[in-house]
Amino acid sequence: MRILITGAAGMVGRKLIARLARDGALRGRKITALDLHDIVAPQAPALAGVDVSIHTGDLSAPGAMAALVASRPDVIFHLAGIVSGEAEANFDLGYRVNLDGTRALFDAVRLAAFAPRLVFTSSIAVFGAPFPDVIPDEFHPTPLTSYGTQKQMSEALLADYTRRGFFDGIGIRLPTICVRPGKPNKAASSFFSGIIREPLAGQEAILPVPRSVLHTHASPRSAVNFLIHAAEIDGDKVGPRRNLTMPGVAVTVGEQIEALERIAGAEVAKRIREQPDETVWAIVKGWPTRFEASRARELGFAAEQSFDEIIQAHIEDELDGKIA
Amino acid sequence: MRILITGAAGMVGRKLIARLARDGALRGRKITALDLHDIVAPQAPALAGVDVSIHTGDLSAPGAMAALVASRPDVIFHLAGIVSGEAEANFDLGYRVNLDGTRALFDAVRLAAFAPRLVFTSSIAVFGAPFPDVIPDEFHPTPLTSYGTQKQMSEALLADYTRRGFFDGIGIRLPTICVRPGKPNKAASSFFSGIIREPLAGQEAILPVPRSVLHTHASPRSAVNFLIHAAEIDGDKVGPRRNLTMPGVAVTVGEQIEALERIAGAEVAKRIREQPDETVWAIVKGWPTRFEASRARELGFAAEQSFDEIIQAHIEDELDGKIA
Repeated sequence: MRILITGAAGMVGRKLIARLARDGALRGRKITALDLHDIVAPQAPALAGVDVSIHTGDLSAPGAMAALVASRPDVIFHLAGIVSGEAEANFDLGYRVNLDGTRALFDAVRLAAFAPRLVFTSSIAVFGAPFPDVIPDEFHPTPLTSYGTQKQMSEALLADYTRRGFFDGIGIRLPTICVRPGKPNKAASSFFSGIIREPLAGQEAILPVPRSVLHTHASPRSAVNFLIHAAEIDGDKVGPRRNLTMPGVAVTVGEQIEALERIAGAEVAKRIREQPDETVWAIVKGWPTRFEASRARELGFAAEQSFDEIIQAHIEDELDGKIA
Repeated sequence: MRILITGAAGMVGRKLIARLARDGALRGRKITALDLHDIVAPQAPALAGVDVSIHTGDLSAPGAMAALVASRPDVIFHLAGIVSGEAEANFDLGYRVNLDGTRALFDAVRLAAFAPRLVFTSSIAVFGAPFPDVIPDEFHPTPLTSYGTQKQMSEALLADYTRRGFFDGIGIRLPTICVRPGKPNKAASSFFSGIIREPLAGQEAILPVPRSVLHTHASPRSAVNFLIHAAEIDGDKVGPRRNLTMPGVAVTVGEQIEALERIAGAEVAKRIREQPDETVWAIVKGWPTRFEASRARELGFAAEQSFDEIIQAHIEDELDGKIA
């Protein structure tokens, strides 16, 4: 089993590599080689008996993808991409990496004609307001960002390339990943993780939106579970509709905070300071809130059942079980 | 008012030019220049006081689109494209013309920064089975052809480029255009027009599918009305969801034949010979049948009310009012 991961240096990529290292196998076969690609060199895991190759460079550079897939991996995880805020700020970069880079990878696989399983991380950013209360699987994507547009276009290519037999693709639309480890960033969604992560680490966190805001979350651990399940699922059961909205936990910010209080106590939850930010709220208002995700659930994709579980996963995976 | 039309040599393009020549104005302004583009030279109408330029070549050739939009047209009708059957048979050609060609045009307009109204002909081929009985406007596109995929991707670009203010785009998803003038072709949908056109011209027509097959049609005259309305509509009323499913007449093949009998008599309708073709039927089964098209209707797009009207339009526009 040879596996290629693009975006291997990112948060999800690193966690996926750690999981694969732990499992040692995928689709019932021992992992013998890992090809890791990113724009900066990903960290190579030390794995006995696994041939690890590190690749760096721009996905959309001519010939780069042909060289990358020359090893004919059995499974490709295509995680690489420019994030939402950057794709909006830099029009050319977003289209070049998120659309042209993805297409370059898909075409390299097509031309090499080895038809691997290909797992692509799409996003709920393919949806744009207005929404029904619960977004059904058959709801149309009408993104309101260039990032969402690039993901939507890549999804369309993935479905067509799969239909034609160039590869066996599964696109997974990730909800907001929470609790993201690391530092706060400039993403408008950063606070969803921040209001849990910072208080648990003994620090103050800012809440820029009202507690009534409803949003869907899945833990980094669930994101990795989705990826592994997407790599292993029977493609015939999925049929021609290859892009699946992943399940998650839909909660209000208030419910997030209540869960934090249940798990870590009132003193920890008091480290959240409400400081309304109209700009952030305006962005968050346009985001989808809650999904049916019926197809994904029926196909065996599973997320946490409660936000408590999401917090527990963070404490176990990032804090060695300890609360500051 | 300067107007650019790509695909100007095609059936819809020719009818649009004839209509513009008759109207002499668009968006309340006198037409002073027409730029006509196609892969083969379109026929130039003789129009007093209108500067007509003929352009030929490949849409996706480097620099071609920049040269084409250098005249900064006020309205662009982007009709050019490889048809469904050809896009399926020739993968590279389909993506090059229908996706890369469209993107090259959109980018040329973006870089020239003159923000015209841009009308794009998409297709109900963006939808793929299974469908509900009536497809609502919010139903997701899951095309089952490369042609449909290319149209879907172009629609996504159109919406994003419009959102960013690069142009003011309207995508119209055309139903099957019926009655198409001219000869039968190799499209699986050819018979929908053939069973009306050939009998009215005194010739036999083959019906390859059962009379129970339900399908949505609009006349070539309606297609041109859609284009004109899309060019003139207030973009603010449309909002960010820029791709609209056009209305049409949903009838069974049996109802098409009954309408022909009502208008032209039983002897004419007897010129249809039933000769089941499993291959054609298999393709037709995957096609969408009936649409709500509520948004388009609310926005003032109007089609025929009955299939009788569609036949009458053909007799008036193509047969000088005479039945053979």
